[in-house]
Amino acid sequence: MAEEKLPKRSENYSEWYNQVIQRAEMADYAPVRGCMVVRPYGWALWENIQQSLDRRFKATGHVNAAFPLFIPMSFFEKEKEHVEGFSPELAVVTIGGGEKLEEPLVVRPTSETVIGYMYSKWIKSYRDLPVLINQWGNVVRWEMRTRMFLRTMEFYWQEGHTAHATFEEAEEETRRMLNTYASFAYEDGAIPVLPGKKSNAEKFAGALHTYSIEAMMGDTKALQSGTSHNLGQNFAKAFDIRYLDQSNQLQYCWTTSWGLSTRFVGAVIMTHGDDQGLVLPPRLAPIQVVIVPIVRNDEEKSVVMPVIEQLRQQLSDVRIKVDDRMELTPGFKFNDWEMRGVPLRLEVGPRDVQNGVVVAARRDVPGKAGKITLNMEQIDKQVNDLLKEIQQAMLERATTFRDAHIYEPKDYADLQEIVKEGWAFAWWCGDSECETKVKEDTKATIRCIPDEQPGGSGTCVYCGKPATQKAYFSKAY
Amino acid sequence: MAEEKLPKRSENYSEWYNQVIQRAEMADYAPVRGCMVVRPYGWALWENIQQSLDRRFKATGHVNAAFPLFIPMSFFEKEKEHVEGFSPELAVVTIGGGEKLEEPLVVRPTSETVIGYMYSKWIKSYRDLPVLINQWGNVVRWEMRTRMFLRTMEFYWQEGHTAHATFEEAEEETRRMLNTYASFAYEDGAIPVLPGKKSNAEKFAGALHTYSIEAMMGDTKALQSGTSHNLGQNFAKAFDIRYLDQSNQLQYCWTTSWGLSTRFVGAVIMTHGDDQGLVLPPRLAPIQVVIVPIVRNDEEKSVVMPVIEQLRQQLSDVRIKVDDRMELTPGFKFNDWEMRGVPLRLEVGPRDVQNGVVVAARRDVPGKAGKITLNMEQIDKQVNDLLKEIQQAMLERATTFRDAHIYEPKDYADLQEIVKEGWAFAWWCGDSECETKVKEDTKATIRCIPDEQPGGSGTCVYCGKPATQKAYFSKAY
Repeated sequence: MAEEKLPKRSENYSEWYNQVIQRAEMADYAPVRGCMVVRPYGWALWENIQQSLDRRFKATGHVNAAFPLFIPMSFFEKEKEHVEGFSPELAVVTIGGGEKLEEPLVVRPTSETVIGYMYSKWIKSYRDLPVLINQWGNVVRWEMRTRMFLRTMEFYWQEGHTAHATFEEAEEETRRMLNTYASFAYEDGAIPVLPGKKSNAEKFAGALHTYSIEAMMGDTKALQSGTSHNLGQNFAKAFDIRYLDQSNQLQYCWTTSWGLSTRFVGAVIMTHGDDQGLVLPPRLAPIQVVIVPIVRNDEEKSVVMPVIEQLRQQLSDVRIKVDDRMELTPGFKFNDWEMRGVPLRLEVGPRDVQNGVVVAARRDVPGKAGKITLNMEQIDKQVNDLLKEIQQAMLERATTFRDAHIYEPKDYADLQEIVKEGWAFAWWCGDSECETKVKEDTKATIRCIPDEQPGGSGTCVYCGKPATQKAYFSKAY
Repeated sequence: MAEEKLPKRSENYSEWYNQVIQRAEMADYAPVRGCMVVRPYGWALWENIQQSLDRRFKATGHVNAAFPLFIPMSFFEKEKEHVEGFSPELAVVTIGGGEKLEEPLVVRPTSETVIGYMYSKWIKSYRDLPVLINQWGNVVRWEMRTRMFLRTMEFYWQEGHTAHATFEEAEEETRRMLNTYASFAYEDGAIPVLPGKKSNAEKFAGALHTYSIEAMMGDTKALQSGTSHNLGQNFAKAFDIRYLDQSNQLQYCWTTSWGLSTRFVGAVIMTHGDDQGLVLPPRLAPIQVVIVPIVRNDEEKSVVMPVIEQLRQQLSDVRIKVDDRMELTPGFKFNDWEMRGVPLRLEVGPRDVQNGVVVAARRDVPGKAGKITLNMEQIDKQVNDLLKEIQQAMLERATTFRDAHIYEPKDYADLQEIVKEGWAFAWWCGDSECETKVKEDTKATIRCIPDEQPGGSGTCVYCGKPATQKAYFSKAY
């Protein structure tokens, strides 16, 4: 099929995003409004995200479990802020087996309530603590304006839920998981996220406080890409999660929750994609290397294919695809795999076979600059080195882009200019009212208050009162 | 906590099953009727099942994807048998975001309809075929009488959905996946399932025909443990899944679906469990080896623990748990890990350290007969050999039990006796009416008509008419 060119990011970022997803076969629209079908190529990316995170969770002592999809409506009413935050977004089952239900069932938008209920049954003594459980699954939030991966009615995620004996331990866990998300984003996603604390206006409904990792997309808007909440004793009190301490006194637990979703797929697309399509980081790419035979007839094919088979064996630790479709031209295939963001392409023609070489093309460096001739004999090491180099280069490129679009505003007028196409790192007095005013004026919100502070003090960018912390302000998805 | 003894299987099998699940912390009751919480130990078993199956699916060319949880009610009405079969079991969302929905949404009980809809968008040409997609997820069926793992309102499963150009290819796929399930059950579950075809009365709603693997539980009842359906062109016609063939003619596809669920966890429990609790096959066990230090004081502990640490390193390819809880006696720990069915226990005391040995106890061979003294130096090989031996012995034991409870009835009176505690392998004329009568008289159903037939012919066990096939009749979960 002869397709039109992808819209340029600089001309229509939003349309570029939608079309990349469709053309790379990452996802498609489901028949139910606001829902998506994650197609095999998109799901394979999510599986790699899952595996990397799951390994990290298990290494920090967490185990997986599965809690029910349906939650009694009454559970939501037990935590005041939680019900206020979530009730406009609920999908509700009212009919089961042909009968009207006595108590409607909510399709989980998040599982603090039902997990809190179970923890109150399971936790008896300080010896049972900490409880460190994670769940991989789907949740539903009735969103009005949806975007593939970024905000869909049903989405896929993991939600960790832990219970601890003290505030300090819960806080340590909350930070540990924030750092886990940040390392994952840097190391595997090549996304230089900025971790920090959310303002009160932006925290999770029912949390004491929320931390998040914030990523800058290719249009400079922010994407919240993972959150970690210290829930204090709010849910422990709502669901009676108590333990006998060492002196036999009943105490409420301190709980946390943390989640990262298929939204991260959107982060990968918008951090790295270019006008030719996706650019996937090697550590997460479903296909790391595509091999394209350059042959004009069956005779050339019979020379080239055995060598490609040999290559496949030499590269057995790499996720490889051999594109041997004979009805398509190499040029078509190059475009196709560029659209899909495969990090490295290997081209093998009859002359290459004669010379014992293979031509490699880096997806992240378009054109001639990204072409390298590899020696067949050392191909395993060379390809693995190249994949590492690409991963590193992608992180560096994204970091450079990010840093080039973060500015320190001189004053409020300056901030208003900056957030049109960038992030402002500005002093903030901590007052919600200033935050609200900035949002009304500019649509920018406080993304997070990072740990890494310049020190000292300044004056609030909005009201001019003394301020001891700086925050990132920007528009966000 | 001092607990009462587990009920004996011979006295109350059903109560034994429920209590094993609770005490081994495999699952717990959720606050919503008929739903379960799969606890970490149960989920780890399911994860091992998932990994083994997923590897097998990928090796046969399948890829994973994710289709939506919600399906428009109207989709179910497009395939007549399908809607008849499933409509009594549906959970229906009628409210979203506080508003009554125009069209109610069904929480998927299975995904043929919505996947059929997507395939009709994706499949255009013979070049797009076959489509070989699998999905891991949760589904909901409004069941009245529920049992943990065996029949719950929400359950976890995989559902494969494939589309092909010809009947023959679809039939080949249907059988391939049946065989995949059977090999998995034998090799990893140590469950000697009997694969075969379902009678028309027992086939999937909307299928041309259904195959299943049937397992014999410890009380001799059958458990259908995986199914594979040749859907013919029924769903292709209902959802207009068509392709242009090589001569440019539009043709309907032939589709299949196949699934295996958390029910398989129930099969593992009931095939192998004994009066002490679970007995897990090493290839699926979350913990393959538990190491219990036998120490009376801190001094002995300081001698034993470094050796256990060394053991842990020598056995790095084995899933190990070291139970170093000091407040509990070794005897309590032995019972605890026996209840959880850990295949192999290693005991290490100060004298063992001196002698360079470790005492191993097999879970599948209780008492002294299952104790073996291992040499520290060759521990890696010895433990791995033992795990293989246990896996093999469990399969053999289950096969012996199965074969000892399958009888060939002389006549119908004999069949009626047999199915009280066993399976009858009997000639059947193929008439649904005979099947129905047997069910009315005995509660036994036709589990499957196996491929492996004795050949020749006989007379139907019920009506006496000529019969060319034998079927397994038994009571079932």
